[in-house]
Amino acid sequence: MHKIEVEAEHDILSLNKRLAKENREFLEKHGVIAINVMGAIGSGKTLLIEKTIEALKDRIKIGAILGDVIAKEDYERVARHGIKAEPLNTGKECHLDAHLVHHVIEKFGDVDLLFIENVGNLICPVDFDLGERYRVVMVSVTEGDDVVKKHPEIFRLADVIIINKVALAKAVEADVDKMVKDAERINPKARIIRMDLRKGIGFEEWLEWLRCVLQSRGE
Amino acid sequence: MHKIEVEAEHDILSLNKRLAKENREFLEKHGVIAINVMGAIGSGKTLLIEKTIEALKDRIKIGAILGDVIAKEDYERVARHGIKAEPLNTGKECHLDAHLVHHVIEKFGDVDLLFIENVGNLICPVDFDLGERYRVVMVSVTEGDDVVKKHPEIFRLADVIIINKVALAKAVEADVDKMVKDAERINPKARIIRMDLRKGIGFEEWLEWLRCVLQSRGE
Repeated sequence: MHKIEVEAEHDILSLNKRLAKENREFLEKHGVIAINVMGAIGSGKTLLIEKTIEALKDRIKIGAILGDVIAKEDYERVARHGIKAEPLNTGKECHLDAHLVHHVIEKFGDVDLLFIENVGNLICPVDFDLGERYRVVMVSVTEGDDVVKKHPEIFRLADVIIINKVALAKAVEADVDKMVKDAERINPKARIIRMDLRKGIGFEEWLEWLRCVLQSRGE
Repeated sequence: MHKIEVEAEHDILSLNKRLAKENREFLEKHGVIAINVMGAIGSGKTLLIEKTIEALKDRIKIGAILGDVIAKEDYERVARHGIKAEPLNTGKECHLDAHLVHHVIEKFGDVDLLFIENVGNLICPVDFDLGERYRVVMVSVTEGDDVVKKHPEIFRLADVIIINKVALAKAVEADVDKMVKDAERINPKARIIRMDLRKGIGFEEWLEWLRCVLQSRGE
């Protein structure tokens, strides 16, 4: 990496750290559990958020921040479920940062659970703390069964690792056990969930984890 | 974007432009056709390169540069086919740049066709010319049928747009026609190929395009 890049990166990450701290303090003060949902394009992030809203919206208040480079499709999909949602476009940047989230965070002081859907890739979001309490990383078996091994950094910091579309594993010749083993080796503390959202597999396990998380703050 | 980021970006892109020009001059001088293969993780980039090598290696000399954040799996897969290959790890960067390619380009002066497989995502590689002659962007229907619409920048600059894994479209509820229409609207000049590499669909059309490209340089 060139010198100018190193210097710029240092400044950007210092600023990000400060704003992430402010976001976190705001969320904790208001008892909001924020979850940074990361994963490649098409891994199922938006559908997971949509299905979770439908399962829980009668019992708790949910908000969502939807990050994307340029589009607003994910925001529109989620907003249709009648919850408070905000789109965040990053322009050419490949990740959300604490500064962008800071612009909208105050609108979410009254929710119990806040999903922050990051921009779709497994590389850029790693270094950018947004002020969230938990990190969820979602991959699909269609990305190839070496996808976990190839991106250790993002999995290392995850609280939950979701391996989605397991029903398609045979069709794409992916070995789900290998993906789970890679995830366990990289991050032995993470909760690993085998999922297929369209078939309903693993969704109950995900809700169970969410319920524990919500209870842990005294709900 | 913050001021420091804009300044750093300007310097980085200027340097990249200069080195891309040098790479391009080297490749043209030696009659090498270089193809920058871009696409998300799991879209099928490595498999496309592998199958193309098997189809053409008896007739032409092929080389490959395999970009990845940290892993060397793609390099190992391609090198097994007995061609000249070089891995390029980007560390934390989410794209190849002309500088990285510049380090290894001189090893490929004797090949006819050089594949440069970029890092797997649809955002970061856009701005970084590597000195290639053609850009191929590959997506899979499993990424969702809104994937083209969501990433117009990368499709705008493509010479070939490959929509892969079409045999899985029904299973993942993806509308291939919609993807093709989005691609045509964003980039009316690109050659669009519907493909399923594991089923053999579209591969002959890809080889036909490659043959034209090789003939155009007087082979």
